[in-house]
Amino acid sequence: MSPKITTELLRQLRQVMKSSRYVAEPIQAYIVPSGDAHQSEYIAPCDCRRAFISGFDGSAGTAIITEQKAAMWTDGRYFLQAAQQMDSNWTLMKMGLKDTPTQEDWLVSVLPEGSKVGVDPFIIPADQWKRMSKALKSAGHVLVPVKENLIDAIWMDRPQRPCKPLMTLDLSYTGIGWKEKIAALRAKMVERKVLWLVLTALDEVSWLFNLRGSDVEYNPVFFAYAVIGTNTIRLFISGDRMADPSTREHLLLDSSLEAEFKIQVVPYESVLTELQAICVGLSPKEKVWLSDKASYALTEAIPKAHRYLTPYTPICIAKAVKNAAETEGMRRAHIKDAVALCELFNWLEKEVPKGSVTEISAADKAEEFRSQQNGFVDLSFATISSTGPNGAIIHYKPVPETNRALSGNEIYLLDSGAQYKDGTTDVTRTMHFGTPSVYEKECFTYVLKGHIAVSAAIFPNGTKGHLLDSFARSALWDCGLDYLHGTGHGVGCFLNVHEGPCGISYKTFADEPLEAGMIVSDEPGYYEDESFGIRIENVVLVIPAKTKYNFSNRGSLTFEPLTLVPIQTKMISIPLLTQKECDWVNDYHRKCREVIGAELKSQGRHEALQWLIRETEPITKMH
Amino acid sequence: MSPKITTELLRQLRQVMKSSRYVAEPIQAYIVPSGDAHQSEYIAPCDCRRAFISGFDGSAGTAIITEQKAAMWTDGRYFLQAAQQMDSNWTLMKMGLKDTPTQEDWLVSVLPEGSKVGVDPFIIPADQWKRMSKALKSAGHVLVPVKENLIDAIWMDRPQRPCKPLMTLDLSYTGIGWKEKIAALRAKMVERKVLWLVLTALDEVSWLFNLRGSDVEYNPVFFAYAVIGTNTIRLFISGDRMADPSTREHLLLDSSLEAEFKIQVVPYESVLTELQAICVGLSPKEKVWLSDKASYALTEAIPKAHRYLTPYTPICIAKAVKNAAETEGMRRAHIKDAVALCELFNWLEKEVPKGSVTEISAADKAEEFRSQQNGFVDLSFATISSTGPNGAIIHYKPVPETNRALSGNEIYLLDSGAQYKDGTTDVTRTMHFGTPSVYEKECFTYVLKGHIAVSAAIFPNGTKGHLLDSFARSALWDCGLDYLHGTGHGVGCFLNVHEGPCGISYKTFADEPLEAGMIVSDEPGYYEDESFGIRIENVVLVIPAKTKYNFSNRGSLTFEPLTLVPIQTKMISIPLLTQKECDWVNDYHRKCREVIGAELKSQGRHEALQWLIRETEPITKMH
Repeated sequence: MSPKITTELLRQLRQVMKSSRYVAEPIQAYIVPSGDAHQSEYIAPCDCRRAFISGFDGSAGTAIITEQKAAMWTDGRYFLQAAQQMDSNWTLMKMGLKDTPTQEDWLVSVLPEGSKVGVDPFIIPADQWKRMSKALKSAGHVLVPVKENLIDAIWMDRPQRPCKPLMTLDLSYTGIGWKEKIAALRAKMVERKVLWLVLTALDEVSWLFNLRGSDVEYNPVFFAYAVIGTNTIRLFISGDRMADPSTREHLLLDSSLEAEFKIQVVPYESVLTELQAICVGLSPKEKVWLSDKASYALTEAIPKAHRYLTPYTPICIAKAVKNAAETEGMRRAHIKDAVALCELFNWLEKEVPKGSVTEISAADKAEEFRSQQNGFVDLSFATISSTGPNGAIIHYKPVPETNRALSGNEIYLLDSGAQYKDGTTDVTRTMHFGTPSVYEKECFTYVLKGHIAVSAAIFPNGTKGHLLDSFARSALWDCGLDYLHGTGHGVGCFLNVHEGPCGISYKTFADEPLEAGMIVSDEPGYYEDESFGIRIENVVLVIPAKTKYNFSNRGSLTFEPLTLVPIQTKMISIPLLTQKECDWVNDYHRKCREVIGAELKSQGRHEALQWLIRETEPITKMH
Repeated sequence: MSPKITTELLRQLRQVMKSSRYVAEPIQAYIVPSGDAHQSEYIAPCDCRRAFISGFDGSAGTAIITEQKAAMWTDGRYFLQAAQQMDSNWTLMKMGLKDTPTQEDWLVSVLPEGSKVGVDPFIIPADQWKRMSKALKSAGHVLVPVKENLIDAIWMDRPQRPCKPLMTLDLSYTGIGWKEKIAALRAKMVERKVLWLVLTALDEVSWLFNLRGSDVEYNPVFFAYAVIGTNTIRLFISGDRMADPSTREHLLLDSSLEAEFKIQVVPYESVLTELQAICVGLSPKEKVWLSDKASYALTEAIPKAHRYLTPYTPICIAKAVKNAAETEGMRRAHIKDAVALCELFNWLEKEVPKGSVTEISAADKAEEFRSQQNGFVDLSFATISSTGPNGAIIHYKPVPETNRALSGNEIYLLDSGAQYKDGTTDVTRTMHFGTPSVYEKECFTYVLKGHIAVSAAIFPNGTKGHLLDSFARSALWDCGLDYLHGTGHGVGCFLNVHEGPCGISYKTFADEPLEAGMIVSDEPGYYEDESFGIRIENVVLVIPAKTKYNFSNRGSLTFEPLTLVPIQTKMISIPLLTQKECDWVNDYHRKCREVIGAELKSQGRHEALQWLIRETEPITKMH
């Protein structure tokens, strides 16, 4: 990997930083955050501005360019990659290390007195703006919004913003029509006494209108905003996508309709001016609801007295609690996904000994088997296919430079998932195609015990997921081991594989309480640097639990695995399991055999069925 | 309980709210918080202003008096008591209920436009001031500091602020001399680049100077502030307490001493003016360190640019990590305390069947046995002695109106502790003097399983206590049960029985990571309204744990019980325990027998020794 030469680009950027065509007064520093205007986790090529200016294309990083310097903040996952991709114009700021200054502190230390620091107000979330602005102000500088993006100004061959066709989802997939969703949303708005709601997150707009897109890789979303009033609906969307007859019909654009369900289609770019116009017309005490993670530009457009900010919009919360149709869709998607993985693992078992399978070819084969399934749309994220030491790199993605052959001597970890029209999958299995060492089995078994502890946990209604995180670690902790990532994230239904507002992590306390119908992942792991990686991940559905008693009439919850893929029993050190844990494994495998076995049979996949039956043999604990 | 008649008092208060002798301009509302100027949990009679004006004397509550109304906010523990103690002038605001307005919202709804709301700036913590001030401002009102306390102005027979003699602690108790503590503190100040530190918490001042007092019930502290500079030490303290020769000698007040260790003794009341004088002399960038929980008055005295606020002062954190002398003192205190409880339980076993023991007489007897022990100073909190349905009231304190006789038909819960010159104790045991029901035993066993799960937990260095809270609940959750309080709090060494900055609770995430040497309680429970209460509480010491592996070289921690009082095996449903849990109980009881047995023997308490031996018989799990 050779670094991108950025000398000329930085010269041009510094020029526009002083050009009256772009800025009212010259700015002494320009901040280039990672994200897009929708705070998306995955971004489109046209939004990869930080990668364009620096060469560093990891998923997280913030660039700051001053008149003299250029610096990049990123975290431990990307220290090596960033150092390799950036030329000597750039200073790498290793976040999390003791001596690394914050962006604010660094700016204060390098800026001349009374400097102006610019940033695209559409890209920076309001809370980050606030923090940065405060820090700069207290040091005598000022953060200024720069309307035109300065990277775009110098990016000659910047790709177009994607504008791919939309897909409509009928009631059999969504369970609830968009009119009903709007009505429920308006009831929430009345409850909170707000007149307007602004949606900026792409998956929230997609979910609300029962539409899907493919503007962003892996995420079936499209670029749009929505502004919902008590009597109006505005959908901000680009291009001629509303010309498609099926979309028009789905949104009832040509029907005579109650006025409050009439969708006004407005150009994507006009969201700011439209929002400003709405705010001009507000009476005192009238409020506009917005996520506190929305962009500074949209937040600022709403006068402070009219802002109603919450960490999550009501759509984010409604979307997280899957209805019966969505849950059934997720079940179907997971059955198809399990079929593909049984095929894959059966194939790997035969092919790996021949020495011809690599991390990349295994990932490709996984995609091939998935794409044979009905309703397959795309992968849900870049497949993590890693063997041996590569498995210890938690966010590894195989590339030709690192590609490693699978063998009978190393652990293989596959973390992968797909988008089906019915739902989204995300599953990790760790396996060995030879004879695992005693130590590898021991570590695998601790991870499995943690996985089971979460999956089988019973907890009161209203419990937040972060309170379950330690259950996943307890067996590892007992032996002095641990893993440095969270245990689970929310999963969308044919939507983003990572979604809020729930999850299972020691890191966040802003998660919403778990509710029946929510879907999260359960994925503890253990990683030994330069040696191996282990992770066992199922997607699980929150369901009511039957308990002997019912304190305070609160009711209890537990999880039901939607993922039904065998967990390699060869990797288990059975004496380390309790009888209850053994029973869990056997019950789980019985269900895999029943449900996935039936599907393999009906798809005529007999060899994979034989593999499934072999892999789901019950285990027995000796007494 | 008949309510306090407050009509005349409220009339007087409303008069001073308009009197130019007390306020520059009339105020339309006056806030009377619960606390004192040191944010103490337990307060002296002279600080019980809210109780004086309202009659309601629970430990938590805020009164607000406007020109027309008087309202009291308190939580679920006190709804009944507050309703009984207050007359019809008062409106009870039940916190935690959906329809109860916040203090801010209520004020905004009742105040005339452009009102002034007053509060004593010494009593309100800075963070509460900020929140209240912001809310009032945005509604067109203003929060104003009223220098002279308006309750004091109308409280004719207000008690004097206590000014009891001090006790000095030598190195055998403290392990570190106060000069050494000051030197270590100054090193921390240099590290954080601050010039001054202000201590407002009474236990922090006591700990720093190795002094104890008895100004506040149960808490061996005295009214004082301390301001530490890089070269100066100021101790703000009232009365002639510095006239005592042993105190003078302890503080080296008459010795020729390096200037930086010379303590200037300053009147208690002058803290604000002295702090203001210090701040006048500050150069730009010079900082003063203060807890963000300190009073608005002291916080405001430091210009914003000079403030260095942290949730915990370095003394709070240093005090929490006990040194060898403190740990040994805590061990000695717990041995003596266990002796007293063995005596008590042996006595109860004989006396309860006679029908003459009540909750109050049992509590008195516990105090009597404790007071026989060397170095006994006081109780560490009001004894919770409760039987049958009273046990379900978590913060119960027996009074004649509720006093209940102990019997062979009901569960008895005793949560009690003492201050010894060596250390502070806090222990809860739940027992039955007859035959517990199957259900009572079942619930007790779940609580015990939770207690053991925390006590035996192994976790990485740097783990915060709140991550362990769910371990205490897991067995209860499995059956649909739970308890509505945290699992543990920090415990001082001959200091406050509740101290920060560590603890074990689902509620707080601001706790500092657990470290070897910290001491916390482990006290899960289960409470069945109108029926019984169960709690099993030990004080435990954080110690390094030996583990098979050592991930990332982080090291591991676990707990060692300091409390060594038998857990009634009669209450245990042994089949519900795992073998590991059985072993834990037997190991614990073996230690109780060894350590407490030896002490009972050496104190010649033979009958209690026989009781101990009986109560620590091993339990056996049938296979």
